[in-house]
Amino acid sequence: MRRLILLLAGALVAGNISAALADSHAEAAVKYRQAVMKAIGAHTGAIAAVVKGQVDYGDHVAHHAASLAEMGSITADIFPQGSGPDAYADTEATNAIWAKADEFQAAVDAFKNQSAKLAEVAQGGDMQATMAEFQNLGKTCGGCHKPFRAKK
Amino acid sequence: MRRLILLLAGALVAGNISAALADSHAEAAVKYRQAVMKAIGAHTGAIAAVVKGQVDYGDHVAHHAASLAEMGSITADIFPQGSGPDAYADTEATNAIWAKADEFQAAVDAFKNQSAKLAEVAQGGDMQATMAEFQNLGKTCGGCHKPFRAKK
Repeated sequence: MRRLILLLAGALVAGNISAALADSHAEAAVKYRQAVMKAIGAHTGAIAAVVKGQVDYGDHVAHHAASLAEMGSITADIFPQGSGPDAYADTEATNAIWAKADEFQAAVDAFKNQSAKLAEVAQGGDMQATMAEFQNLGKTCGGCHKPFRAKK
Repeated sequence: MRRLILLLAGALVAGNISAALADSHAEAAVKYRQAVMKAIGAHTGAIAAVVKGQVDYGDHVAHHAASLAEMGSITADIFPQGSGPDAYADTEATNAIWAKADEFQAAVDAFKNQSAKLAEVAQGGDMQATMAEFQNLGKTCGGCHKPFRAKK
Protein backbone atom coordinates (compact mmCIF):
# COMPACT_ATOMS: atom_id res chain seq x y z
CA MET A 1 0.00 0.00 0.00
CA ARG A 2 2.78 2.39 0.94
CA ARG A 3 4.56 1.46 -2.29
CA LEU A 4 1.40 2.21 -4.27
CA ILE A 5 1.09 5.62 -2.62
CA LEU A 6 4.73 6.40 -3.39
CA LEU A 7 4.22 5.33 -6.99
CA LEU A 8 1.10 7.45 -7.32
CA ALA A 9 2.81 10.42 -5.70
CA GLY A 10 5.77 9.97 -8.01
CA ALA A 11 3.49 9.87 -11.05
CA LEU A 12 1.74 13.06 -9.93
CA VAL A 13 5.04 14.89 -9.44
CA ALA A 14 6.30 13.66 -12.81
CA GLY A 15 3.04 14.73 -14.44
CA ASN A 16 3.26 18.16 -12.91
CA ILE A 17 6.88 18.57 -13.93
CA SER A 18 6.03 17.51 -17.46
CA ALA A 19 3.08 19.95 -17.57
CA ALA A 20 5.27 22.72 -16.15
CA LEU A 21 7.93 21.97 -18.76
CA ALA A 22 5.34 22.10 -21.54
CA ASP A 23 4.13 25.44 -20.18
CA SER A 24 7.64 26.84 -19.97
CA HIS A 25 8.28 25.73 -23.57
CA ALA A 26 5.05 27.36 -24.65
CA GLU A 27 5.89 30.54 -22.75
CA ALA A 28 9.37 30.68 -24.28
CA ALA A 29 7.91 30.10 -27.76
CA VAL A 30 5.35 32.86 -27.26
CA LYS A 31 7.91 35.31 -25.91
CA TYR A 32 10.27 34.60 -28.79
CA ARG A 33 7.41 35.09 -31.24
CA GLN A 34 6.56 38.38 -29.55
CA ALA A 35 10.19 39.52 -29.90
CA VAL A 36 10.07 38.82 -33.64
CA MET A 37 6.73 40.65 -33.94
CA LYS A 38 8.11 43.55 -31.89
CA ALA A 39 11.04 43.82 -34.30
CA ILE A 40 8.69 43.71 -37.28
CA GLY A 41 6.50 46.38 -35.67
CA ALA A 42 9.49 48.60 -34.90
CA HIS A 43 10.94 48.42 -38.43
CA THR A 44 7.50 48.98 -39.93
CA GLY A 45 6.85 51.95 -37.64
CA ALA A 46 10.23 53.43 -38.52
CA ILE A 47 9.52 53.20 -42.27
CA ALA A 48 6.04 54.66 -41.70
CA ALA A 49 7.58 57.69 -39.97
CA VAL A 50 9.76 58.28 -43.03
CA VAL A 51 6.88 57.73 -45.46
CA LYS A 52 4.70 60.22 -43.53
CA GLY A 53 7.52 62.78 -43.65
CA GLN A 54 7.83 62.94 -39.86
CA VAL A 55 11.56 62.28 -40.11
CA ASP A 56 14.02 62.80 -42.93
CA TYR A 57 15.70 59.40 -43.08
CA GLY A 58 14.90 58.23 -46.60
CA ASP A 59 18.23 56.44 -46.76
CA HIS A 60 17.29 54.31 -43.74
CA VAL A 61 14.31 52.67 -45.41
CA ALA A 62 16.40 50.05 -47.20
CA HIS A 63 17.99 49.07 -43.87
CA HIS A 64 14.61 48.56 -42.19
CA ALA A 65 13.28 46.79 -45.28
CA ALA A 66 16.25 44.40 -45.27
CA SER A 67 15.53 43.63 -41.62
CA LEU A 68 11.86 43.02 -42.41
CA ALA A 69 12.88 40.58 -45.14
CA GLU A 70 15.12 38.79 -42.61
CA MET A 71 12.13 38.47 -40.28
CA GLY A 72 9.82 37.50 -43.15
CA SER A 73 12.11 34.57 -43.84
CA ILE A 74 11.65 33.15 -40.32
CA THR A 75 8.02 34.05 -39.53
CA ALA A 76 6.64 30.67 -40.64
CA ASP A 77 8.83 28.97 -37.98
CA ILE A 78 7.59 30.89 -34.98
CA PHE A 79 4.19 29.23 -34.64
CA PRO A 80 5.14 25.72 -33.46
CA GLN A 81 2.42 23.28 -32.42
CA GLY A 82 1.70 23.75 -28.73
CA SER A 83 2.38 27.48 -28.61
CA GLY A 84 -1.27 28.50 -28.79
CA PRO A 85 -3.55 30.02 -26.15
CA ASP A 86 -4.39 26.63 -24.64
CA ALA A 87 -0.73 26.15 -23.67
CA TYR A 88 0.07 29.74 -22.70
CA ALA A 89 -2.77 32.19 -22.22
CA ASP A 90 -0.82 35.42 -22.71
CA THR A 91 -0.73 35.21 -26.51
CA GLU A 92 -2.88 36.78 -29.19
CA ALA A 93 -2.30 33.79 -31.47
CA THR A 94 -5.55 31.89 -31.99
CA ASN A 95 -6.17 28.17 -32.48
CA ALA A 96 -7.24 28.91 -36.07
CA ILE A 97 -3.51 29.14 -36.91
CA TRP A 98 -3.22 25.39 -36.46
CA ALA A 99 -6.81 24.50 -37.38
CA LYS A 100 -6.50 26.25 -40.76
CA ALA A 101 -2.81 25.57 -41.26
CA ASP A 102 -2.83 25.85 -45.07
CA GLU A 103 -4.65 29.16 -45.02
CA PHE A 104 -2.28 30.47 -42.35
CA GLN A 105 0.78 29.29 -44.28
CA ALA A 106 -0.45 31.14 -47.38
CA ALA A 107 -0.85 34.34 -45.35
CA VAL A 108 2.63 33.99 -43.83
CA ASP A 109 4.10 33.28 -47.29
CA ALA A 110 2.51 36.49 -48.59
CA PHE A 111 4.34 38.44 -45.87
CA LYS A 112 7.59 36.62 -46.60
CA ASN A 113 7.38 37.30 -50.33
CA GLN A 114 6.28 40.91 -49.99
CA SER A 115 8.96 41.75 -47.39
CA ALA A 116 11.56 40.31 -49.79
CA LYS A 117 10.14 42.41 -52.61
CA LEU A 118 10.12 45.55 -50.48
CA ALA A 119 13.75 44.98 -49.53
CA GLU A 120 14.73 44.56 -53.17
CA VAL A 121 12.87 47.66 -54.35
CA ALA A 122 14.09 49.76 -51.40
CA GLN A 123 17.64 48.74 -52.21
CA GLY A 124 17.11 50.24 -55.69
CA GLY A 125 16.47 53.65 -54.12
CA ASP A 126 13.24 54.59 -55.95
CA MET A 127 11.29 56.10 -53.04
CA GLN A 128 7.93 56.17 -54.80
CA ALA A 129 8.15 52.51 -55.81
CA THR A 130 9.35 51.69 -52.30
CA MET A 131 6.34 53.43 -50.76
CA ALA A 132 4.01 51.41 -53.01
CA GLU A 133 5.64 48.14 -51.95
CA PHE A 134 5.51 49.24 -48.33
CA GLN A 135 1.75 49.77 -48.66
CA ASN A 136 1.47 46.30 -50.18
CA LEU A 137 3.42 44.92 -47.23
CA GLY A 138 0.94 46.54 -44.85
CA LYS A 139 -1.85 44.53 -46.46
CA THR A 140 0.00 41.27 -45.82
CA CYS A 141 0.16 42.10 -42.07
CA GLY A 142 -3.64 42.12 -42.05
CA GLY A 143 -3.61 38.79 -43.89
CA CYS A 144 -2.59 37.15 -40.61
CA HIS A 145 -3.67 39.67 -38.00
CA LYS A 146 -7.31 39.83 -39.05
CA PRO A 147 -8.21 36.12 -39.29
CA PHE A 148 -5.60 34.64 -36.95
CA ARG A 149 -5.01 37.12 -34.12
CA ALA A 150 -7.29 37.53 -31.10
CA LYS A 151 -9.03 40.89 -30.77
CA LYS A 152 -7.56 42.90 -27.93
CA MET B 1 0.02 101.88 -32.76
CA ARG B 2 -2.48 99.35 -34.13
CA ARG B 3 0.10 98.32 -36.74
CA LEU B 4 2.71 97.85 -34.02
CA ILE B 5 0.31 95.64 -32.02
CA LEU B 6 -0.46 93.57 -35.14
CA LEU B 7 3.24 93.19 -35.86
CA LEU B 8 3.95 92.14 -32.30
CA ALA B 9 1.03 89.70 -32.31
CA GLY B 10 2.23 88.28 -35.62
CA ALA B 11 5.72 87.84 -34.24
CA LEU B 12 4.36 86.07 -31.17
CA VAL B 13 2.25 83.71 -33.28
CA ALA B 14 5.18 83.01 -35.61
CA GLY B 15 7.40 82.39 -32.59
CA ASN B 16 4.92 79.93 -31.11
CA ILE B 17 4.47 78.12 -34.41
CA SER B 18 8.22 77.88 -34.80
CA ALA B 19 8.60 76.55 -31.24
CA ALA B 20 5.78 74.06 -31.80
CA LEU B 21 7.40 72.93 -35.04
CA ALA B 22 10.73 72.46 -33.27
CA ASP B 23 8.97 70.41 -30.59
CA SER B 24 7.17 68.25 -33.14
CA HIS B 25 10.46 67.68 -34.97
CA ALA B 26 12.12 66.71 -31.69
CA GLU B 27 9.24 64.41 -30.79
CA ALA B 28 9.35 62.72 -34.19
CA ALA B 29 13.13 62.31 -33.94
CA VAL B 30 12.83 60.79 -30.46
CA LYS B 31 10.05 58.42 -31.50
CA TYR B 32 11.98 57.30 -34.56
CA ARG B 33 15.05 56.72 -32.38
CA GLN B 34 12.93 54.70 -29.97
CA ALA B 35 11.65 52.56 -32.86
CA VAL B 36 15.23 51.78 -33.90
CA MET B 37 16.16 50.98 -30.29
CA LYS B 38 13.05 48.81 -29.94
CA ALA B 39 14.10 46.86 -33.03
CA ILE B 40 17.62 46.46 -31.65
CA GLY B 41 16.22 45.32 -28.31
CA ALA B 42 13.86 42.83 -29.95
CA HIS B 43 16.55 41.26 -32.15
CA THR B 44 18.94 41.13 -29.21
CA GLY B 45 16.31 39.56 -26.95
CA ALA B 46 15.50 36.98 -29.63
CA ILE B 47 19.16 35.98 -29.95
CA ALA B 48 19.47 35.84 -26.15
CA ALA B 49 16.53 33.41 -25.98
CA VAL B 50 18.36 31.12 -28.42
CA VAL B 51 21.68 31.47 -26.61
CA LYS B 52 20.03 30.62 -23.26
CA GLY B 53 18.45 27.54 -24.83
CA GLN B 54 14.90 28.75 -24.17
CA VAL B 55 13.99 28.20 -27.82
CA ASP B 56 15.51 26.00 -30.46
CA TYR B 57 15.99 28.47 -33.30
CA GLY B 58 19.74 28.38 -33.87
CA ASP B 59 19.21 28.98 -37.57
CA HIS B 60 17.44 32.28 -36.83
CA VAL B 61 20.43 33.90 -35.18
CA ALA B 62 22.02 34.96 -38.46
CA HIS B 63 18.77 36.67 -39.47
CA HIS B 64 18.58 38.68 -36.26
CA ALA B 65 22.30 39.42 -36.47
CA ALA B 66 21.90 40.72 -40.04
CA SER B 67 19.11 42.99 -38.82
CA LEU B 68 21.28 44.23 -35.96
CA ALA B 69 24.03 45.07 -38.45
CA GLU B 70 21.48 47.00 -40.54
CA MET B 71 20.55 48.97 -37.43
CA GLY B 72 24.18 49.39 -36.41
CA SER B 73 24.81 51.08 -39.75
CA ILE B 74 22.22 53.81 -39.04
CA THR B 75 22.54 54.32 -35.27
CA ALA B 76 24.94 57.25 -35.61
CA ASP B 77 22.27 59.17 -37.57
CA ILE B 78 19.49 58.95 -35.03
CA PHE B 79 20.84 61.47 -32.55
CA PRO B 80 20.41 64.75 -34.46
CA GLN B 81 21.12 68.06 -32.71
CA GLY B 82 17.94 69.26 -31.01
CA SER B 83 16.57 65.82 -30.18
CA GLY B 84 17.73 65.84 -26.58
CA PRO B 85 15.76 66.16 -23.34
CA ASP B 86 15.63 69.97 -23.52
CA ALA B 87 13.61 69.75 -26.75
CA TYR B 88 11.47 66.72 -25.85
CA ALA B 89 11.36 65.54 -22.28
CA ASP B 90 10.22 61.96 -22.91
CA THR B 91 13.64 60.69 -23.96
CA GLU B 92 16.37 58.87 -22.05
CA ALA B 93 19.02 60.46 -24.27
CA THR B 94 21.16 62.83 -22.20
CA ASN B 95 22.85 66.09 -23.16
CA ALA B 96 26.22 64.36 -22.77
CA ILE B 97 25.60 62.83 -26.22
CA TRP B 98 26.15 66.22 -27.80
CA ALA B 99 28.46 67.66 -25.14
CA LYS B 100 30.90 64.74 -25.55
CA ALA B 101 30.21 64.12 -29.23
CA ASP B 102 33.56 62.44 -30.00
CA GLU B 103 33.25 60.03 -27.09
CA PHE B 104 29.67 59.24 -28.09
CA GLN B 105 30.65 58.70 -31.72
CA ALA B 106 33.33 56.23 -30.66
CA ALA B 107 30.79 54.29 -28.59
CA VAL B 108 28.31 54.20 -31.49
CA ASP B 109 31.06 53.12 -33.88
CA ALA B 110 31.90 50.23 -31.55
CA PHE B 111 28.28 49.04 -31.79
CA LYS B 112 28.30 49.47 -35.56
CA ASN B 113 31.52 47.50 -35.99
CA GLN B 114 30.61 44.76 -33.55
CA SER B 115 27.12 44.25 -35.02
CA ALA B 116 28.72 43.90 -38.46
CA LYS B 117 31.18 41.37 -37.03
CA LEU B 118 28.42 39.39 -35.33
CA ALA B 119 26.43 39.26 -38.57
CA GLU B 120 29.46 37.98 -40.45
CA VAL B 121 30.32 35.30 -37.89
CA ALA B 122 26.66 34.25 -37.48
CA GLN B 123 26.41 33.87 -41.25
CA GLY B 124 29.28 31.37 -41.02
CA GLY B 125 27.16 29.15 -38.77
CA ASP B 126 29.68 28.49 -35.96
CA MET B 127 27.36 28.82 -32.96
CA GLN B 128 30.10 29.01 -30.34
CA ALA B 129 31.95 31.78 -32.18
CA THR B 130 28.60 33.52 -32.73
CA MET B 131 27.82 33.41 -29.02
CA ALA B 132 31.21 34.96 -28.23
CA GLU B 133 30.60 37.80 -30.69
CA PHE B 134 27.10 38.26 -29.29
CA GLN B 135 28.56 38.69 -25.81
CA ASN B 136 30.98 41.25 -27.24
CA LEU B 137 28.05 43.05 -28.82
CA GLY B 138 26.33 43.23 -25.43
CA LYS B 139 29.31 45.16 -24.08
CA THR B 140 28.99 47.77 -26.82
CA CYS B 141 25.35 48.42 -25.77
CA GLY B 142 26.66 49.44 -22.37
CA GLY B 143 29.21 51.67 -24.09
CA CYS B 144 26.38 54.10 -24.86
CA HIS B 145 23.74 53.16 -22.32
CA LYS B 146 25.90 53.61 -19.26
CA PRO B 147 27.45 57.04 -19.91
CA PHE B 148 24.85 58.53 -22.25
CA ARG B 149 21.44 57.27 -21.17
CA ALA B 150 19.42 58.68 -18.29
CA LYS B 151 18.81 56.34 -15.36
CA LYS B 152 15.20 55.21 -15.23
